Amino acid sequence: MRYSRIRVDGRPVWAEIADGLAHIMDISPIETEPLRLGRRLPLADVDFLPPVIPGVFYAVGFNYRSHVEHYGAKAPDRPEVGYRANNALTGHHQPIVKPAEVTGRFEAEGEVVAVIGRTLRRASRSEAQESIFGWTIGNDVSAREWQHADRTFWRSKNSDTFKPMGPWIETDVDPLAQTTTVRVDGGVRARFATGDMLFDPFDFIVEATKYLTMHPGDVLWMGADSNVQLEPGRTVEIEISGIGTLSNPVLEERHP
Amino acid sequence: MRYSRIRVDGRPVWAEIADGLAHIMDISPIETEPLRLGRRLPLADVDFLPPVIPGVFYAVGFNYRSHVEHYGAKAPDRPEVGYRANNALTGHHQPIVKPAEVTGRFEAEGEVVAVIGRTLRRASRSEAQESIFGWTIGNDVSAREWQHADRTFWRSKNSDTFKPMGPWIETDVDPLAQTTTVRVDGGVRARFATGDMLFDPFDFIVEATKYLTMHPGDVLWMGADSNVQLEPGRTVEIEISGIGTLSNPVLEERHP
Repeated sequence: MRYSRIRVDGRPVWAEIADGLAHIMDISPIETEPLRLGRRLPLADVDFLPPVIPGVFYAVGFNYRSHVEHYGAKAPDRPEVGYRANNALTGHHQPIVKPAEVTGRFEAEGEVVAVIGRTLRRASRSEAQESIFGWTIGNDVSAREWQHADRTFWRSKNSDTFKPMGPWIETDVDPLAQTTTVRVDGGVRARFATGDMLFDPFDFIVEATKYLTMHPGDVLWMGADSNVQLEPGRTVEIEISGIGTLSNPVLEERHP
Repeated sequence: MRYSRIRVDGRPVWAEIADGLAHIMDISPIETEPLRLGRRLPLADVDFLPPVIPGVFYAVGFNYRSHVEHYGAKAPDRPEVGYRANNALTGHHQPIVKPAEVTGRFEAEGEVVAVIGRTLRRASRSEAQESIFGWTIGNDVSAREWQHADRTFWRSKNSDTFKPMGPWIETDVDPLAQTTTVRVDGGVRARFATGDMLFDPFDFIVEATKYLTMHPGDVLWMGADSNVQLEPGRTVEIEISGIGTLSNPVLEERHP
């Protein structure tokens, strides 16, 4: 099943995506069994929102060997989570806005995203596996000069629109047996196997929930193998086989 | 006015705190004008929750000169936000649970917390001042060995119960003209003027909203001057004059 949040008549609603249509649902499918309300929209007319607004937005840094090597960093010896911020989330087809002050590398990273479906504390590996509601796609847009100059990742990774997520949550897919492809204006710029992760989502959930409670709707972004430079006027697509394609145009910020 | 969230009949509800009573309200006061529903509880019977669950949980690191000097760090030259995680929030009177694996310094920091009341982007200083719904108290509990050993602050600052907040939001107080007092079992362990901040809340809001949108209910924890060691079996109180007192017992974790 594929579920997303979409904007209808100015309001966010949940929808099931099937047969080229968005079927509007009564409630969130994450903890309950939603019903189709009867209204449906062709996908071409759908205004996609981030498929979930998490209570906690977890993200993983160095989690693919070539990404670690690219930075000359030491590979992590244990799975440690970090955080991103909800203000930065945006939906499929919505613009990534490059701030006027950004110079240097402004890059996309295509990531598998786990959407947590249960309350979890001290999860075993099998409990972690059973806890997943589904999988979506994230683009961890980063302004590298800020990332290096600032004390935290606040604006380098959390400026508005820097975290496209979507287009939907796929509930039936093996996230570790897929291929991630990053395209700019249709040209392939990166391709890697999702399964090449150093630590998989369940490793992170087992380790994190030794100390903290994960809740339904929390998300865990799993890191990327490659960085792809973004330019205003172009469109970036992250395709993960078995899930879908997240597409966002890149715009230059105009001051108000 | 003082507002909090409390648990009544197992459910979270908003309450106005006045005359030694919690007056249950119909809706959140943050963006609307709530009504008293008639039911009220003596404060002694109130089960306090964190007074707000933020969409984004902002926190400030080095923001008092003696705290910076304590760490031999360089004082920040600009106001940069960081993040904490909602799972760690807990309410007034709820236990801070020290994980069994924690050794070394396990410390409290008493912080002024701004609760944002409006949607803000590119705020001027006066817009930042007008955007505040009110002020509450946070205790930024930290396990220092983890803080130094880990890549991020995930478990050092975001383990469950490490972020007591409350007891309520005070809407009518000058947060920069108060005194913060940290007590353990009634004995004063730290006392400092809130106004000794390097950057004030409005400096942070002006800088942050150059790049990101703040939303009603977001919180901004303002940092502390001093660290106070916590021991299981004792109770830590953070009093900020003009706001109130946040009190939490410290417990040792027992494995299930």
